[in-house]
Amino acid sequence: MKKFMNDAGSLAADSLEGFVAAHEDLVAFGQGRKHIRRRVFTPGKVAVIAGGGAGHEPMHVGFIGKGMLDAACTGHVFTSPTPDQILGAIQEADNGAGVLLIVKNYDGDLMNFEMAAEMAVSSGSHRIETLIVNDDIAIERTARGTGRRGVAGTLIVEKIVGAAAEGGVDLATLKTVGEAAIAATRTMGVALRGATVPQITRETFALGDDEMEVGVGIHGEPGRSRQKITDASTIATLVCNQILADLAPAEGQRILLLVNGLGGTPPSELYVMFGLARRFFEARGLVVSRRLVGTYATSLDMAGMSITVTLLDDALTTLWDAPVSTAALRW
Amino acid sequence: MKKFMNDAGSLAADSLEGFVAAHEDLVAFGQGRKHIRRRVFTPGKVAVIAGGGAGHEPMHVGFIGKGMLDAACTGHVFTSPTPDQILGAIQEADNGAGVLLIVKNYDGDLMNFEMAAEMAVSSGSHRIETLIVNDDIAIERTARGTGRRGVAGTLIVEKIVGAAAEGGVDLATLKTVGEAAIAATRTMGVALRGATVPQITRETFALGDDEMEVGVGIHGEPGRSRQKITDASTIATLVCNQILADLAPAEGQRILLLVNGLGGTPPSELYVMFGLARRFFEARGLVVSRRLVGTYATSLDMAGMSITVTLLDDALTTLWDAPVSTAALRW
Repeated sequence: MKKFMNDAGSLAADSLEGFVAAHEDLVAFGQGRKHIRRRVFTPGKVAVIAGGGAGHEPMHVGFIGKGMLDAACTGHVFTSPTPDQILGAIQEADNGAGVLLIVKNYDGDLMNFEMAAEMAVSSGSHRIETLIVNDDIAIERTARGTGRRGVAGTLIVEKIVGAAAEGGVDLATLKTVGEAAIAATRTMGVALRGATVPQITRETFALGDDEMEVGVGIHGEPGRSRQKITDASTIATLVCNQILADLAPAEGQRILLLVNGLGGTPPSELYVMFGLARRFFEARGLVVSRRLVGTYATSLDMAGMSITVTLLDDALTTLWDAPVSTAALRW
Repeated sequence: MKKFMNDAGSLAADSLEGFVAAHEDLVAFGQGRKHIRRRVFTPGKVAVIAGGGAGHEPMHVGFIGKGMLDAACTGHVFTSPTPDQILGAIQEADNGAGVLLIVKNYDGDLMNFEMAAEMAVSSGSHRIETLIVNDDIAIERTARGTGRRGVAGTLIVEKIVGAAAEGGVDLATLKTVGEAAIAATRTMGVALRGATVPQITRETFALGDDEMEVGVGIHGEPGRSRQKITDASTIATLVCNQILADLAPAEGQRILLLVNGLGGTPPSELYVMFGLARRFFEARGLVVSRRLVGTYATSLDMAGMSITVTLLDDALTTLWDAPVSTAALRW
């Protein structure tokens, strides 16, 4: 295993420190350096907080800023942040309008965010709602939990919810907006090389020179099936067919199409996949009205990519288009 | 070799097609699909055109847009665009104010851009100036040419020149601005794993499990030395010391610090390196007044990163800060 890091235990913390040093115009460490927050909060709006294990950068810290998240909590690599961290973020970000927590569907994250929410509510001073993102259609059960996993689609939910919060909607309405975004979003990924977790110094799953892992998640767990590697068109068709079958969109449906890199795959290959995926969906009568290509939700240095589709209506489109000013997304 | 591609010969073209499909609000194919251009040119300004081999995405096509490039020409992987391609871009982008060509210092690129410029000038209708970027301090001579190579610092030159052009300066002044940016900019890179060129189906240089390549370029050529891999702090100190020695900045000098990923290195590791590099320069009395971290100038899927420093004065800072709206840089 070769990485730019000082030691396996410090990668997550050193990376966060570098992140804040690079984006100090946008973000700052929260109290006790246990979370990262916007440098300046927008007064009077619902606070939107996300979090999860390290190793997925720029998710979630790269989405902190006007129009998206107020704060994010990062645990150790592939490990949930603690309830203590999440509670600290709630206390710092909530200015009375309540807090919406965005959690990816893994048992560890669910448990710790729920515990933090209970502590915040029982202190009597916070109103909390929680969204659980489960966009990954590949598998229904892993060692990390039951039901579909939350993967790259999480950033779409965070963007849409963040825009609505910035627009001033109340906590209950915001939760409804987030649920609509989640219901409209599906993802599936393929890896060509597994992630190397620093602590274990080997790939989380080892693929042969002629193999790929289909339906891979972002924690280095195996996917749905191991297959012989094939050309990009066949991979795009395989993944897009699954998404299409699951979403079953109507003819003429507008979609947001995201091709996300998992950390070790360069932009040149992501653009190949985007071109193929776009053509796939357009050939089936869908309208690719919004697009995003980049490395946003990673699994350390995994070579791989995921394709995400969100069905768009006017409301979701307006929220997606709303201004955003974060380290990783800006328009 | 495992890549998301259809075949080795089509990777560059398929990637460009996906790029245009992803960013059709900003860019379009030029005539004959031989270059990529802004969807809408700014009237009356000097046209800024760059180019080079494929495999460095998002450089240069990702820098086309308001405030940066007008057009870019991409060759095959690690191969210069042809004079014919470059001439086409000149003819389409020049609206009478002249053309500034930005070329990285490699013999193939120099030859083809020079030939295109001669053809354009001898046709009697174009005024052309050329900037040669040579920011890489690692080595002075490679199989690809004499003198320092052009690497990630090229994007800084393109941003600064693009802003000045958008501001309406004339061709001669623009060349002076670009020369100032080049004179102020130095880069050095380190690779942990070589790039895999599609046509040759193996890594361009093979590193042992405990080795790193110091002073690496972006064409898969070997660097200055092969060393035992070490921790991130030692790597940062090694690279930053070289840059510091070469630039010899005064105490209190303001700098732009760029940490660039070479394609296979994830954001988490780039941020580790940024934090260390920033601390290095600040400890030596420099002021890191502008910052950029990301995957901008790649060498296919090479695992590695480079550190770039530009010495800033008020004029360069203003041009760096000016609005830019491209696929890869936007503020």
